[in-house]
Order: sequence, then structure tokens, then C-alpha cells
Amino acid sequence: MSIVVVGSVAFDSIETPSGRVDHALGGAATHFALAASYFTQVRVIGVVGEDFTAANEDVLKKRGVDTSGIEHVAGKSFHWTGSYTRTLNEADTLATELNVFETFTPKIPASYCDSEFLFLANIDPKLQARVRREMPKVKMVCGDTMNYWIKDHSAALAEVLVDLDVLLINDGEAKMLAEDANLVRAAKKILGMGVKTLIVKHGEYGATVFFSERSFPGAKPEAHATPFRAPALPLAEVVDPTGAGDSFAGGFFGYLASKKGELTPGNFRKAMFYGGVMGSFAVEKFGTERTQKLTREEIDARFEQFRALSHLD
Amino acid sequence: MSIVVVGSVAFDSIETPSGRVDHALGGAATHFALAASYFTQVRVIGVVGEDFTAANEDVLKKRGVDTSGIEHVAGKSFHWTGSYTRTLNEADTLATELNVFETFTPKIPASYCDSEFLFLANIDPKLQARVRREMPKVKMVCGDTMNYWIKDHSAALAEVLVDLDVLLINDGEAKMLAEDANLVRAAKKILGMGVKTLIVKHGEYGATVFFSERSFPGAKPEAHATPFRAPALPLAEVVDPTGAGDSFAGGFFGYLASKKGELTPGNFRKAMFYGGVMGSFAVEKFGTERTQKLTREEIDARFEQFRALSHLD
Repeated sequence: MSIVVVGSVAFDSIETPSGRVDHALGGAATHFALAASYFTQVRVIGVVGEDFTAANEDVLKKRGVDTSGIEHVAGKSFHWTGSYTRTLNEADTLATELNVFETFTPKIPASYCDSEFLFLANIDPKLQARVRREMPKVKMVCGDTMNYWIKDHSAALAEVLVDLDVLLINDGEAKMLAEDANLVRAAKKILGMGVKTLIVKHGEYGATVFFSERSFPGAKPEAHATPFRAPALPLAEVVDPTGAGDSFAGGFFGYLASKKGELTPGNFRKAMFYGGVMGSFAVEKFGTERTQKLTREEIDARFEQFRALSHLD
Repeated sequence: MSIVVVGSVAFDSIETPSGRVDHALGGAATHFALAASYFTQVRVIGVVGEDFTAANEDVLKKRGVDTSGIEHVAGKSFHWTGSYTRTLNEADTLATELNVFETFTPKIPASYCDSEFLFLANIDPKLQARVRREMPKVKMVCGDTMNYWIKDHSAALAEVLVDLDVLLINDGEAKMLAEDANLVRAAKKILGMGVKTLIVKHGEYGATVFFSERSFPGAKPEAHATPFRAPALPLAEVVDPTGAGDSFAGGFFGYLASKKGELTPGNFRKAMFYGGVMGSFAVEKFGTERTQKLTREEIDARFEQFRALSHLD
């Protein structure tokens, strides 16, 4: 049950109250792939420059991630420089050097074509739509986006949202997309845009999933009437929030894919918990350091911590 | 198992995106008393002016609340004017007319002295300390405070915090009190100030309770190692957020008092849910309108909604 992820494979230079790191391996596709790799086979589509070393690629390979869709071209890899010294809740972007990512044209290896799951990380919605069109065998598509595409590329984004299985965005993005300051009403509007299931991420407060009647085909109406809220783990130190959202997506979609995409309310709820679990690990160290070296036992132990944190009994 | 609450009994003039209301019955003690009245007997200590009518007092009496500790004096009642038109997350205070509340000197009726539970609503910590001293038979004390007392009356507040059973404050207040932007570290520092159990309210994201080794006398260490996070109900319309925090406190403490203050982890968790439940009702209408006329059946049905919202199975 492999997932194809298309998105950025990049280097991040990050400053936080805990320290700084220069040119750490990052990018949405990287964070997603590493997190999802604990649940299922992952295949990456991306582009990197000559500065992307075999050692960088080995980080993914060691986790069993298929990197044959990572195109190597002349030039430098995408490099993002950001700071969280003002607040850990939001990055201040200091520099965005798109480099080879500027002309990224996703190429899908023939060997990826039997994948049934597709994750469209935060890239140009035109590219998201194209990859989706070129993988007609895919049976479940999850996607991310951001303010920039919502504001200035709404028509292209609208096309991606139609029949998207799961959209994962944060509070601010959901309210901007729906043009409504109330989250419940915003969620209803976004589901009305064609999104089957909406996950809104609340940072340190967890995430809420809102269902539509198309979330669980054939289920009773009450199955989708109630949203589900997964907590986040209260942490005494958030070292680096970069990639937390993509790691959430990786845990969420990785778990669902491992269940063969069986869309029951119970599987969705557990997937939300696994999303939170992978997000909580991601922020404990800089870059992908923590997510590179986990065990399924550590992951499941933390899943139980999430249960203890939120369950009455 | 009656609770004595000391705090403001007031009139509120409020504007929100849903409309406006003039001189609605309000005040922290009123909101707390009404919410707690669905769980246990409540007795109020407060002061009102000549504008406080028998009909106002009947709102409390109809819920079985003992109002013999509400002192009637010459002058006008406390009147607060606020607006939530900028954001529902925070009130903009337009006018604070303390009136008779300015010289409030709590007087405890002799008939209240057998109460075992005491709630110190948000008033001058010197008055909180005095009421507590004058009720030596009380076995459990919960309290609230706010930025103003944290900033400018820290010494008096520090005395209240020592051996306080439960402090209920919001994120911003917790971080200000502890002078730490990380919630987990802030909670640890506040527990170090002598507070036995700390509840941090996150508004629309729910609330987290942090335990210390003094939360559950005689329990195993693991009982207090894990915090517990209760969700808030996602609502399509928040009509008026005023009193949500006091209603949370009323549901929380009312439930615990109904369990004779039996401080087990399970009772604490359920109390957190009942806090969220009463907070969710409070914001559905202006002032105390919704909380005046509930049934225990409605409350327990919503409790089950909270469970469905947050539990895996």
C-alpha cells in the first residue's frame, strides 16, 4: 500500500530559541516521507541540485523510502532560511532560495504507477493537479496548501479541492480559504468546495477533523456528524517546529494507507492520533533528526501517551 | 456538599458579532453559581446596589442558589461594558464602573460556615486570602485570577497560591505568572508556587490540567505525571463568550463537590469535561440566558458529545 508524495526536498537553515542549524535536510516531501515510512512504503517525487549528496539521499533510503523519483539537476537545491526566535508558533522567513525548485516539473517514474495513495505536499496547485491527473490509478489523495496559493492562486487551488479526499491545513489557512472567522462554518464551506474530509491543525492544541457525507461511503449519517479532535502532546521544549505539519500528514496518511485506505471512523481517529504522534516527535530535534531514528515501539508508546492525555478512562 | 463562591455579581453590557445586550445579569460569581448549581448546592458572597432587583436575585434562587450572602447596599451595582466585535477570543473593555464593588468587603453568613468547598472568583487576592482564612472548615479551595493581579499584586497573589487546591487561568495568564512562554515549563513553575493542581484554559481549544504529587494524596507517581486535556465543543456560533471561564469553573468544581471532593484521576478528568460542557452552553446565548435553563439531561448528553469528540472508540 505505497504512498507517492510530491513536494519539496530541500535544505533548511533554522534559528530557534534552542539553537540553530545550517543546511539541514528538510522540505515537505522529506518530512512527510520519513514520518509515513514507519507505517507503509513511500515513494518521493521531487527535484534537487548538485549540493544534494548521496548521504542526504541515504537518510530516506535507510527508511526504505523509494527515491527514484527525486530528479537530480544542475544548480542548487531549494534552500529556506527561517527563524522562530520571535515565537515558536510561526516562522519568520528570512530567505527563500527556490533554486532548482523554481522550474520543478514533477516526473512520475513508471515504477510508481501502481501506488494507490498520493500526497500532494504544499506546491503550486497546478502541479498538484497535474500529478493527480497523471496517476489515474490512485484511489486516495490527501493534500496540503498554504496562504500564498489560497490568496493568489485560488482558481487553480479550487480545481485541486474538488474530490480531494483529505485536505490538511491550519486554522488561519482554513479561515482564509473559507473567508469565515468561525472554524465550524469555515469547515462546512470548505467541505462544500468538494473536499471530502478536512483536517484543521491547531499547532500546540492538536487538530480537528471535520467529516462530510462522503468521508465514509455507506456509513450512517451520525458517523460524519461529529468532528474528532486529537490532542497535541504538551512538550517542555519545542526545539524546531519546522516540518511538524508534514510529519503530522505523514503519520496520518501513512497509518490510513497501512489500513489499505479503509475509511472507517475508527481508522480516521487512530490516524489523527498517529499524525499528532509524528508531529510531536518531529519538533523534539532540529530538522529530520528525530524522525530519522524512531522505532515503531516508540511510536506506539507515544500513541498510548496521547490516549492517556485525552481519554476519561 | 455545598460550594461557597465569592466574587462579582454584576451587570454586563456586551456587544458581539451576534448582537448586543444592555445590563444583562452577569459577574463571575453569578456565572459560576448558575453552572455549579446543576451539580451541587451553591452559596454566593457578593455585593450589589439598589439597581439589583428581586427578579435578578430570583434567577439565582430559582436554581436553588443561596443568596443570603449577597449584600445589598446604597448605590449602583458593578457594571462592565465590553465588545467582542474585533475578535471573539478576547474582550475589549469599553467601561468598568466598579460602583459598590469598589469597596466590597466580603461578609460570610454564619449559615455558610459548614461549607466544605470554596471558590475564589477573580477578585483582589487580599480579599481571596481573607475569605479563605475566615472559613477554616473548608477542605478544598479553587481559585481564579487575572493579568491585573499577576502584574501589580504579585505578593498578595503569591499568598493565595500557597496550598491552593486548584488554580484556573488561561494560557496568557499562566505564561505571565510563570514568566515562561512554554506552557509545560510554566505549569511546573506554578505548581512550584504551591498550587496543587493547575488548569490552563485554551478558549476554543479546550483546557489542560497539570497535576502535582499533591493532586492525588496517596496515589502512585504515574497518576500525576500525565496531564489531561479536555476538548472544547466546536460551535458554529459563539453568541457571547462572557462568563465562559466562570461557567467552566462552575461545571468543574460543581462536579468535584458532588463527588464529595474525592480527588481521583477519574473524577478530575470527568470534572474537566463537565467544565467544558458548561462553558460550551454559556457562550450559546447572551449573559446567563442559556445557563439559567438547562436540564441535567442536556448536560449529560453534551458530556457524551465531548466523549465522541475526543475518544478513539
